[in-house]
Amino acid sequence: MPYSYLKPLLDNNGSKIILLVLDGLGGIALTPDGKSALEYAKTPNMDRLAEEGTLGQTVPIRYGITPGSGPAHLALFGYEPLEFVIGRGALSAAGINLPVKAGDIAARGNLCTLDGNRNVIDRRAGRISHPEAAPVIELLNQVQIPGVEVEVRQVKEYRFVVVMRGEGLNPALNDTDPQEVGVPPLKLEAQDPESKRSAELMNKWIEKAYQALADQPVANGFLLRGFATDPGLPSYEDAYELEAVCIAEYPMYKGVSRLVGMDVIEGIDSGILGEFNAAKEHWNEHDFFFIHIKKTDSYGEDGNLEAKAMIIEEVDQALPLLLDLNPDVLIITGDHSTPSVLKSHSWHPVPFLLWAPKTHRTDLETAFTERNCARGGLGTFPAVETMSLALAHAGRLQKFGA
Amino acid sequence: MPYSYLKPLLDNNGSKIILLVLDGLGGIALTPDGKSALEYAKTPNMDRLAEEGTLGQTVPIRYGITPGSGPAHLALFGYEPLEFVIGRGALSAAGINLPVKAGDIAARGNLCTLDGNRNVIDRRAGRISHPEAAPVIELLNQVQIPGVEVEVRQVKEYRFVVVMRGEGLNPALNDTDPQEVGVPPLKLEAQDPESKRSAELMNKWIEKAYQALADQPVANGFLLRGFATDPGLPSYEDAYELEAVCIAEYPMYKGVSRLVGMDVIEGIDSGILGEFNAAKEHWNEHDFFFIHIKKTDSYGEDGNLEAKAMIIEEVDQALPLLLDLNPDVLIITGDHSTPSVLKSHSWHPVPFLLWAPKTHRTDLETAFTERNCARGGLGTFPAVETMSLALAHAGRLQKFGA
Repeated sequence: MPYSYLKPLLDNNGSKIILLVLDGLGGIALTPDGKSALEYAKTPNMDRLAEEGTLGQTVPIRYGITPGSGPAHLALFGYEPLEFVIGRGALSAAGINLPVKAGDIAARGNLCTLDGNRNVIDRRAGRISHPEAAPVIELLNQVQIPGVEVEVRQVKEYRFVVVMRGEGLNPALNDTDPQEVGVPPLKLEAQDPESKRSAELMNKWIEKAYQALADQPVANGFLLRGFATDPGLPSYEDAYELEAVCIAEYPMYKGVSRLVGMDVIEGIDSGILGEFNAAKEHWNEHDFFFIHIKKTDSYGEDGNLEAKAMIIEEVDQALPLLLDLNPDVLIITGDHSTPSVLKSHSWHPVPFLLWAPKTHRTDLETAFTERNCARGGLGTFPAVETMSLALAHAGRLQKFGA
Repeated sequence: MPYSYLKPLLDNNGSKIILLVLDGLGGIALTPDGKSALEYAKTPNMDRLAEEGTLGQTVPIRYGITPGSGPAHLALFGYEPLEFVIGRGALSAAGINLPVKAGDIAARGNLCTLDGNRNVIDRRAGRISHPEAAPVIELLNQVQIPGVEVEVRQVKEYRFVVVMRGEGLNPALNDTDPQEVGVPPLKLEAQDPESKRSAELMNKWIEKAYQALADQPVANGFLLRGFATDPGLPSYEDAYELEAVCIAEYPMYKGVSRLVGMDVIEGIDSGILGEFNAAKEHWNEHDFFFIHIKKTDSYGEDGNLEAKAMIIEEVDQALPLLLDLNPDVLIITGDHSTPSVLKSHSWHPVPFLLWAPKTHRTDLETAFTERNCARGGLGTFPAVETMSLALAHAGRLQKFGA
């Protein structure tokens, strides 16, 4: 349970919280006298909120630790990321809404190309297109073995998720992906006495599935990795008494959200306006809105500071749409930093803006930048405290003790 | 193990880290409108690094806790100081490179003067000189009893370390030093059922050793304190995959460093330039350089703010020597504060400067002072996070989770 001391204090007063996550928001300047993307971007709306509200910066996992997106979001959602670990198979399955219960096992898969000796010659089957891969993956979905039920579903292009459901399964299994070509896929072995039966069943299924693909011209094999089961995360409703909803474009963020029991709005229009309009449309149905913007991270990873800044500006311009909904609490932050100069996620603290006009304490800062956030009124704090701050500023936490 | 989550993320990329510790660096002004030693000192080089890099301040142990040098350094090295405790005997032994293995027991000793009734009349034997004390301590080293091996070695002047090696020893023993004169040395008693045999053996050795000194004119007795065994600290190599080296003038800092598996450079020229030149000379042999400057603390304890500032200026002037080595990460900090106005160690946060030109995030601060550090981009953080930050900024930590 996220911070169990919160639960007895909860007071569901119907107030509304928006958690707006600009993925990889934090950055650093490209040159010593330069600006980060957030500093470079013109953000009059965010700056006004910064001036009215309060700033801070978060440490996503621990000092110096560069987070993957999964643990970084778990932290924002209040789940201690070193304690709650989501296996990649379970995360991918949740991303496409493929049910994985405790005791089921799920893995991510790639179609691949094998030669006559069953050595891998292309780990992604020539990056076969989505429509080309679809019937091949459906062939896999038809492969069944006694004693368990197997479901295979395409994610995108050559990528798929496989779920095995039955009694006594255990996900302590190695990847079959050898991570190189010229060698055969690895055989599955139990990494734990408890996963022996799972290894036998899955090897049996894999063998039968290879036979089913034997005549395929390109995608005549597949590689599996990230075996996992349902991580058993407590739900937002249990932990916070919040009716939460996820508005995101990418499956992985929908996945984490589903795993904490959020609803996920599907079929939204693409782009920032599409996401914000979805919040507006569903405003009365929920009281916690997790809105995820992906492209700040993507451009950061491309090393494209100006494009990252442009996305931040787009968000800023669209902000009035969210403000018109009169949220009680609006938090604008990232899950981690993705400095364009590093072209990757990083460990640097993440800018954090909290605006809650009925309850926030104003600080001395007047602009939403990394450097201002470092001096902000909330200080430097673990990202896992985000939900406590959100609930408190929403008036949803009663007094602790007499 | 320091933070076990670091270990699976380590990526030994050969980058180089300097941790420059000015002992007791933090201070407070002598008068309300005055300056601390760090503010008083002219430090153009540090100020430039502060402007380019990022500042912060550390809490050495916990808020309000004034650390001794041992735990303060353990924290800087990433070892939670409330969990890893080094007994003084073990620390002193390590300082003079006298081996103490798990199961051995070591204590610090002072030669003292006893009267005819074996009452202590001088706890330091008239501060007998180093050459005068040497043969007396060698007499002690000759004293052996059956079943164990005892080694006694001089530290400096009347100070020595005694190590007892054998089976079933346990360091839960009281000090024999009564901390006053006119009374006899205390008898050793087991503080724990497990140390009963150790008390018997050590009392037997003490009695025999007193007899060996009976004819000495001044140093006819001795007092023991700080019984301890090897603290069993994980090594820097195990914990961080770092080939670490200690450059320090004082035995105690060499001792802590040896206990975490650092190499120690002996026979360096004295003074700051001697230390920095040793780093240059051994630059290719190591990838982590702990450089310890003692005199900032000494002058702080003397209450001599100007002399403390002068040492800081000397370090500043010598800094280009280190910068010319092109370290990937340079951290300048203290192990604790030693405000001249208090003439002692204190609990105040410690100024912290991190300069890592490829990865640091610049903050708004432009001078290396306590007051600027309090607003710096790293915030206020536990000293035990120092190594995580150093490794991250050196590019030595991979991503956590997917």
